[in-house]
Parts: sequence; C-alpha cells; structure tokens
Amino acid sequence: MSTRADMAMHVLPGIPLIEAGDDLAAILHAALGRLPVTLADGDVLVLAQKIVSKAEGRLVRLADVTPSARAVALGAETDKDPRLVQLILDESTEILRQRPGMLLVRHRRGFVGAHAGIDQSNIDHADGEGALLLPVDPDASAMALHAALLELSGKRIAVIIADSMNRAWRLGTIGGAIGCAGLQVLDDLRGSSDMYGRELKVTLINRADSLAAGACLLMGESVERTPAVLIQGLPWRPTAQTARDIIRPLAEDMFR
Amino acid sequence: MSTRADMAMHVLPGIPLIEAGDDLAAILHAALGRLPVTLADGDVLVLAQKIVSKAEGRLVRLADVTPSARAVALGAETDKDPRLVQLILDESTEILRQRPGMLLVRHRRGFVGAHAGIDQSNIDHADGEGALLLPVDPDASAMALHAALLELSGKRIAVIIADSMNRAWRLGTIGGAIGCAGLQVLDDLRGSSDMYGRELKVTLINRADSLAAGACLLMGESVERTPAVLIQGLPWRPTAQTARDIIRPLAEDMFR
Repeated sequence: MSTRADMAMHVLPGIPLIEAGDDLAAILHAALGRLPVTLADGDVLVLAQKIVSKAEGRLVRLADVTPSARAVALGAETDKDPRLVQLILDESTEILRQRPGMLLVRHRRGFVGAHAGIDQSNIDHADGEGALLLPVDPDASAMALHAALLELSGKRIAVIIADSMNRAWRLGTIGGAIGCAGLQVLDDLRGSSDMYGRELKVTLINRADSLAAGACLLMGESVERTPAVLIQGLPWRPTAQTARDIIRPLAEDMFR
Repeated sequence: MSTRADMAMHVLPGIPLIEAGDDLAAILHAALGRLPVTLADGDVLVLAQKIVSKAEGRLVRLADVTPSARAVALGAETDKDPRLVQLILDESTEILRQRPGMLLVRHRRGFVGAHAGIDQSNIDHADGEGALLLPVDPDASAMALHAALLELSGKRIAVIIADSMNRAWRLGTIGGAIGCAGLQVLDDLRGSSDMYGRELKVTLINRADSLAAGACLLMGESVERTPAVLIQGLPWRPTAQTARDIIRPLAEDMFR
C-alpha cells in the first residue's frame, strides 16, 4: 500500500543565514539535495520573502533615511518612526487606512498590506536600526530563481515568494504570494459545470495563495532558520501567470 | 533515510454523496480507515462546509421562501433572486457592501463573506431550486464531529470546517475556517523575541485558516467527491479555541 500523500510539504534543511549578495539559487539547490525526495517538474518551492529581500540587499539603515515633512506628520499621527514612515511612503502608491501603530497601504506592486511589507524583525541591528524592504520586483525575483533552479537541477520548479499578510475582518496572519513563477497562480473555472450541470459561480481559485498559506505555517516565526518549503504531489499546470495577476483591479475594489 | 514529510495531506477516499441525516462521523471514520496511514492524536481533518451543511439538513427550497419587501427591493438593486436575498438577510446581521450580483454581509456567526456562505452549486435541484445554508453553528458541528471521532477512533482528531472565501484586494478564493475544534486556531507569539532579541511585532498566526487554505486546494471544485482532507505531521497543541476566535472585533474593523 502506498503511503504517498496527495500533497507533501518538506522544510528545506540547513539553509544558512542569508546576506546581501548571496547566491540564493545555489543555496536552495544544495538544500534541496539534502531532502529525501526526488525533484520533479511541477514541484513548488515556497520561499519566505525575507531571504529573497536580504539576498537582494534590501536592508536599509534607518540612520540613512531623511524623512520628509509629510513622513514626520504621518509619523506623529500614527505613532511611528518618521524614517520608517518615509520608507513606507516610498514603497507605496496609496494609503488606505491609518491609525496609531498601523499604516495600511497599497504597495507599488499593487498588493495591499500593512507597512508596505517592511519588516524590522529577524534583522541584525548591530550596525544601527534597520528595516527590510520587499524585493524590488518579487515576480522578477521568482522568475530568476525559477530559471536558475532549472539550470542547476534540470527540473521546472515553480517558485512562490511568500509573505505574512493581515486580512480584513479576520485575526491572525496567513502566508500569501507576492511573487510567482512557473505555476498556475489562479485556476479559472468560469463556464465549467458542477456535478448537477449547473454553471459554477465561485470560479476562480487562488492556488498560489493557498500554497503559500500552508507552507508559511511550516516556516513558523523561526522563518530565518526554515525559510523554504518544497511542495510535492499536486498536478502541474504551468502558466505565465505571476503574483501580479492576483491583484484585484482597482475598479472592482470595494474597500479603497 | 526517512521520506516522511513535515506536513502531509491525504484526500479521504470513497466518501459518498451526503444527504440530510447522514451519520457524518461514521462515514468519515470509515473513509479514514481506507487511508494508508496510522491516525494519531493531533491529526487534523479538514471538511468542506458543504457536507456538514447537507448532513445537517440545511438545504432550503427557494419555493418555500417568501421574500419580504426589503428582500424584494434589495434583490432588484443587486440583480438577485429576492428569495435568495431573503435567506441571505436571515443568515446575516449586517450588509457591508452591495452591487449588482454581489452582497457582502456579516454572517450571524460573525465572519464576513459573500452571500452569507449560501451556495447553489453542487446541489440537486431536481426537487425545485435549492440553496444550501451554512451549518447553524459550525463550531458546535466541529466539536460534535471531534467528539464522535474520538469515540470511534480513540484519537483526538482536530476538525476544521472550511469554506471558500473571497477577500478584499486579492482575486481568487482560498479556503478559510468557519468551524474548529481540538486544535490551536491562533498562535499568539506576543512577548516572544526574534533571533536578534527584538520583540516580535507580527505576533498572531492563523493556523486554522492556513491549514484550511492548503487542504481546500486539494478538494478542488469537485468538492462533493473529495470533501475531506487529513493533515498529518504538525506539532499538536490542543486548545479550546474555535473559529469564533478568528473574528476581528468590530471595534478594530477598519472596513465596516
């Protein structure tokens, strides 16, 4: 009797702390080789945004940031460091909501989140207080890693760059996809029928976010130690979709 | 070398179409017995809301619904069957947004979603057009199944009742938890420190929603055929938390 699961998630072992300039694809490829599995086309690698950002040198020292008058005012209103507010403003196109301790913005890549994804945890502040920005273009980062892993392994490993996300109405973060390459991000069932021949109404399934949510649970908060999860077992339907395709068009946004 | 995954998800095989009055716990227990795995305390069983609702007889024939004047008016505004609108109003406490084809409401159990979770797909309409309501109390349903499975299997199997959810700002549905029993729903890390000794800011991880999202991806749209997924491998931290604990308090809701 096979004990093969329909979906199996493996934490990649032995990934070192990532620093700016590290060859992330080579590090991931080596870690994949330590897993007791055989890689296959269509396997999905979910990566914590944090290691991609660090490898890309997106750590900023707050001492190097000069806040604008707007950032100073907004910092006073929200009880946040004006230099951090300046970084948030630089990384976003729109402020959706603000209150003390919280700035909900639309990131310049389109997705909505607290503080434009800028994070101050699990960062070495020995060199002065720092803040880690999201990758410049997470979809491009995912595509570059996807291509490099194909080169190294000969397999088409889909890549999801994931980040913890807050949501409206529900407490607690779950992982979501901010960069994707080599997988079906959205599964559009429009026009297909249910088992009684009725047309399906809920027709768009977000596969990338579903996988990111499950995988990020395995990373936990020690995400620096376990920042990568391999997912095996799902049917493979490669597309040219990216995380950009997840963004709800502004015209359909009822919560702007 | 062990090939055990850190998290493994198994679709339960051979679950029949569920009808009102079916003994769901017995059906699930039989299906668990067909899986090539050994059950353990802390395993998590994710169930599609649909089979729980059907077993509980929550299928309503629209012909039996008399819409109020308010439902008729709202149906005209949103281009929806006023009988369906009446059911949505009966199941909810607040309308958050409306537009043609869509009513976003707060379900009487607290969570926010389209159409109060009422679904018309994968229902036998031979007897007249029907609509399936959510369970009366999904947390109570989960707890009853959790207790019955303990009785039948001798194991403490956590139960998550999951439903597809739309989200603000992001396209595509993902699974979310509407009923939970026997697991840690929210993981509160407040007060703990990151690897550099800095206090963690993102401190609440939604474990139940993360698991529901991953498992619902395996159910797919043929959810009637594959409405249950067993998850193994995660550390077990039972709590008395329920899906009710996921609801963001109204005072903190910035999108009312």
